[in-house]
Amino acid sequence: MITINENFLNLQNNYLFSTIAKKVDDFKLKNPEKKIIKLGIGDVTRPIAPVVLEAMHKAIDEQGNLETFRGYGPEQGYEFLREKIAEFDYARRGVKISPDEIFVSDGAKCDCGNIGDILGTDNVVAITDPVYPVYLDTNVMSGRSGNYNNKTGKYEKIIYIPVTAENNFIPEFPKEIPDMIYLCFPNNPTGTTLSKEELKKWVDYARKNKILILFDSAYEIFISEENVPHTIYEIDGAKEVAIEFRSFSKTAGFTGLRCAYTVIPKELKVYTKQGKEVNLISLWDRRQGTKFNGVSYPVQRGAEAIYSEEGQKQIKENILYYMNNAKIIKEGLQEAGYTVYGGKNAPYIWLKIPSGLTSWEFFDKLLNEVNVVGTPGVGFGPSGEGYFRLTAFGTKENTIEAIERIKNMK
Amino acid sequence: MITINENFLNLQNNYLFSTIAKKVDDFKLKNPEKKIIKLGIGDVTRPIAPVVLEAMHKAIDEQGNLETFRGYGPEQGYEFLREKIAEFDYARRGVKISPDEIFVSDGAKCDCGNIGDILGTDNVVAITDPVYPVYLDTNVMSGRSGNYNNKTGKYEKIIYIPVTAENNFIPEFPKEIPDMIYLCFPNNPTGTTLSKEELKKWVDYARKNKILILFDSAYEIFISEENVPHTIYEIDGAKEVAIEFRSFSKTAGFTGLRCAYTVIPKELKVYTKQGKEVNLISLWDRRQGTKFNGVSYPVQRGAEAIYSEEGQKQIKENILYYMNNAKIIKEGLQEAGYTVYGGKNAPYIWLKIPSGLTSWEFFDKLLNEVNVVGTPGVGFGPSGEGYFRLTAFGTKENTIEAIERIKNMK
Repeated sequence: MITINENFLNLQNNYLFSTIAKKVDDFKLKNPEKKIIKLGIGDVTRPIAPVVLEAMHKAIDEQGNLETFRGYGPEQGYEFLREKIAEFDYARRGVKISPDEIFVSDGAKCDCGNIGDILGTDNVVAITDPVYPVYLDTNVMSGRSGNYNNKTGKYEKIIYIPVTAENNFIPEFPKEIPDMIYLCFPNNPTGTTLSKEELKKWVDYARKNKILILFDSAYEIFISEENVPHTIYEIDGAKEVAIEFRSFSKTAGFTGLRCAYTVIPKELKVYTKQGKEVNLISLWDRRQGTKFNGVSYPVQRGAEAIYSEEGQKQIKENILYYMNNAKIIKEGLQEAGYTVYGGKNAPYIWLKIPSGLTSWEFFDKLLNEVNVVGTPGVGFGPSGEGYFRLTAFGTKENTIEAIERIKNMK
Repeated sequence: MITINENFLNLQNNYLFSTIAKKVDDFKLKNPEKKIIKLGIGDVTRPIAPVVLEAMHKAIDEQGNLETFRGYGPEQGYEFLREKIAEFDYARRGVKISPDEIFVSDGAKCDCGNIGDILGTDNVVAITDPVYPVYLDTNVMSGRSGNYNNKTGKYEKIIYIPVTAENNFIPEFPKEIPDMIYLCFPNNPTGTTLSKEELKKWVDYARKNKILILFDSAYEIFISEENVPHTIYEIDGAKEVAIEFRSFSKTAGFTGLRCAYTVIPKELKVYTKQGKEVNLISLWDRRQGTKFNGVSYPVQRGAEAIYSEEGQKQIKENILYYMNNAKIIKEGLQEAGYTVYGGKNAPYIWLKIPSGLTSWEFFDKLLNEVNVVGTPGVGFGPSGEGYFRLTAFGTKENTIEAIERIKNMK
């Protein structure tokens, strides 16, 4: 008799954004005349840069020609792209990452989920709280979570590390030492960052305790302030303990095109239960070679194109556009008396809900009264209760209007 | 201390095609003047059809325009593609599959591997032998294989069902009843098929014993004979027990573009250990929603384009080209006195090695003496020993030359 992976039965509700989509759809059905402004899901809206379009058109023409046609590419990604990444995203910042430590993929979400394939299911997982739901849900699926406790809103085996206004959004070491921890900076959902000094504390802690750091750096391009690390490998010793996930989704608007990459340094050691050292990179290489078949060739050519001088100029125009929206949201809400975080090095604004409302109640209030969609903080974890996320990915016009509406909300 | 998934240590050697690539590279280094002809890996060589190029160019232009830009698409694939699949690949053959039972992905290899995420690790797995290595290796990774036995060349917990010339390449029911079985028809590597009657026996067996059939139908488009099922759902009752994997890789030359799909009918029930029924589709939907982010939009538009009248005409030209190669290989080898199978409903020719050579020895002989690369049968499983796979995906000129060389081989 065929049986299921019963860990799936431990998953709570539906995926956060599906729930929101359903609420919005229901509202639309009942109020077809209302103009809804969505500042909820973290999806980009600016068109793809011309250099990327040009590179993709060219690659597609190559696919139509017998002499230049390419079939299966390397599962790890083409050298032309891996070399550009190594040079531009790392060497330029004084960090030595070799192209064969870079694995191109179709999404950081996929990699963040699939990385669990190569890790033992007994590892104790720590997440910051609030957090991107994928880290948690994929660990529930693979059996690392234990049971869900309805009272606490937490899984029994997961270590939740609160990041709230109280600790200035800086995660503190938990009482129990975890085996693996997800860190995302610039942070989704709070929009906050860690300084090099703060991140170094975590790297040192991981080295001391043989912990794997899963560092999600999908929002690196939004960093505008000094002393914020652009890659965890700027920190001495990080190569021994950290994987880094990066993505073209936010960097270059690739959410619909699909391209990302994961870095696993050769120095990164993990262990058998008996304590024998294993290179994590060899496991991931085997996993990708067996369960993945590389990223679409024209998409990899498109990603390559952003590393030209003109490409950088073009993608940064979009980033500035979004960060201007972030400023509009941040300053507008502050004027309206709200306390807000983030928005300086990230496209997310994390808003403290002033009254006694829960974050889902605030979601409903915003949707029903001023037709603005955001994301309730508690959707990202129990410590997100009392907060609300707005994103800078809308159009400037909609962002201005949304903030005006919120300002005038009773 | 971070620990690994130790099942990975159970994997044997490297992935088959990597090993071949290494041998070929070594040969090239030593013999730079030799012209190697590769009829080994199952990768296409014909350029992408013009309708596909046109659709992709258009989609890329849409991505460059604010009004038509698309970010994240549905994880399950766009409706426009799922509807075409449902209509063309199923309804046209009298099979009712709803678009929401179709999950578009970036590869059948990925889906064949990832499907294990939602199934219990205690399930007993059956594979035909020889077999596409991904079915086996992904089950080793997830802990369903038991230990490898060096003497038998088999994993202890896996049920190997021989498909050889002795049983006319028709798998027989094993002594022990499995919980899940992979069936691939038209078959990779043997190039053989099952009749409707033979496939019905397996569907009935699966229904009787609550077995899940994982039906890989990646080579459907090569079927040229009557009474060969184009989808397992042509068989009554199959929807209750079978997943079907399909791909645009061979159908339309998408190995470098990446698009495939998996069908999970709503009727398909699986079970908790306690015997409670669960719909498999809900688990896969949750898995894909959490660990996947959809296929590149321009690629989905490209896939959609093959379903037009002109698209069908164009992709079939390539298929005829390959099948002509298959004929050249089959007839040429028969003239040379070899016994060959397949090549009529599949792009694979399965050749019986005449002398006392092992299949790796025959591989080396072909590489060294006539500079032709094929795939040793034993690479697909112990029952592949004594056989050798050639593929029809080369150019016509190279195929003719390779066969001439083999004919003249001492």
